[in-house]
Amino acid sequence: MTPFLHKTDGDASMREGEVALASDPADLPGDAHVIFIGHVHSPWTNRDDCPKNMNRARERDGGDALVEIDTEFRPGLAGLEAASHVIILTWLNLTPRNLIVQKPRHAPHPKGVFSIRSPARPNPVGLHIARLVALNHAAGRLTLDAIDVLDGTPVIDVKPYYASIDSFPDAVTERHGK
Amino acid sequence: MTPFLHKTDGDASMREGEVALASDPADLPGDAHVIFIGHVHSPWTNRDDCPKNMNRARERDGGDALVEIDTEFRPGLAGLEAASHVIILTWLNLTPRNLIVQKPRHAPHPKGVFSIRSPARPNPVGLHIARLVALNHAAGRLTLDAIDVLDGTPVIDVKPYYASIDSFPDAVTERHGK
Repeated sequence: MTPFLHKTDGDASMREGEVALASDPADLPGDAHVIFIGHVHSPWTNRDDCPKNMNRARERDGGDALVEIDTEFRPGLAGLEAASHVIILTWLNLTPRNLIVQKPRHAPHPKGVFSIRSPARPNPVGLHIARLVALNHAAGRLTLDAIDVLDGTPVIDVKPYYASIDSFPDAVTERHGK
Repeated sequence: MTPFLHKTDGDASMREGEVALASDPADLPGDAHVIFIGHVHSPWTNRDDCPKNMNRARERDGGDALVEIDTEFRPGLAGLEAASHVIILTWLNLTPRNLIVQKPRHAPHPKGVFSIRSPARPNPVGLHIARLVALNHAAGRLTLDAIDVLDGTPVIDVKPYYASIDSFPDAVTERHGK
């Protein structure tokens, strides 16, 4: 253990083996600030029911999977209709920011937060890659094939997805011998 | 033109057809704050010389392409060695945040910021997908195959790349008829 950490196994909100940062990022002065540019509309209204990743969201016939961009930012959508897929960055503001080592429910051992896609992160930025089904510029509305966050989740960025730089079909997360 | 926008063709720092937000996000109170968890080490020390995307960075034999995570966050790297590819989120703090419509140097027409990967964005989060060449947990150092941002760029998140949810090799950005 380094002096920067304390174990908090005794904390009822943490699972065995989890480790918290000594200083909660939520309480630190920020190095920079984000502004919310819009919000997600999704069928998911409670965390237990919310799909844990985009493929789980696709498997469920949930209804709306929309991003609505606020009025002043809508001119920024010009040209996005040419993209088949988009990257949505969200701000997952309901999660703790101090869990540097976490014990996912179905994992045998605790894992570092940067080795998993947990929404509980020092900077809780969610990354979601979706098919862009429709785009209504006037309404600032992107219709997606699915979305895996709660209704009302703030959006901080939208980017076009480029297969040439973003697609690595052979990437693995269980490298031999690791 | 909506009342939220003003054209700024007369501004010497803007190109023809570019549009600025009426309120610069840099000057607004933030909706949330980010903390820097580390920094990039790259061979690129001035913007004109910096590769514009990850493939351009890969084409150049530039030398170091590292992310160094600050001491207190290093336990968060546990388990990341199993990932062949990682997603790095950076904070591109040298760019204007108010250019909602931009004229890329080699594009024939202005484009909405959300349809391009420009570093100048309302929330200047850079997204970089790289091969993880080596990981030194003690030093908090990720060696990447390449990186396309300036030396010293702050890092706000690291995530494992999952081909199952992040790879869309057939994605296009020039959809027919768009």
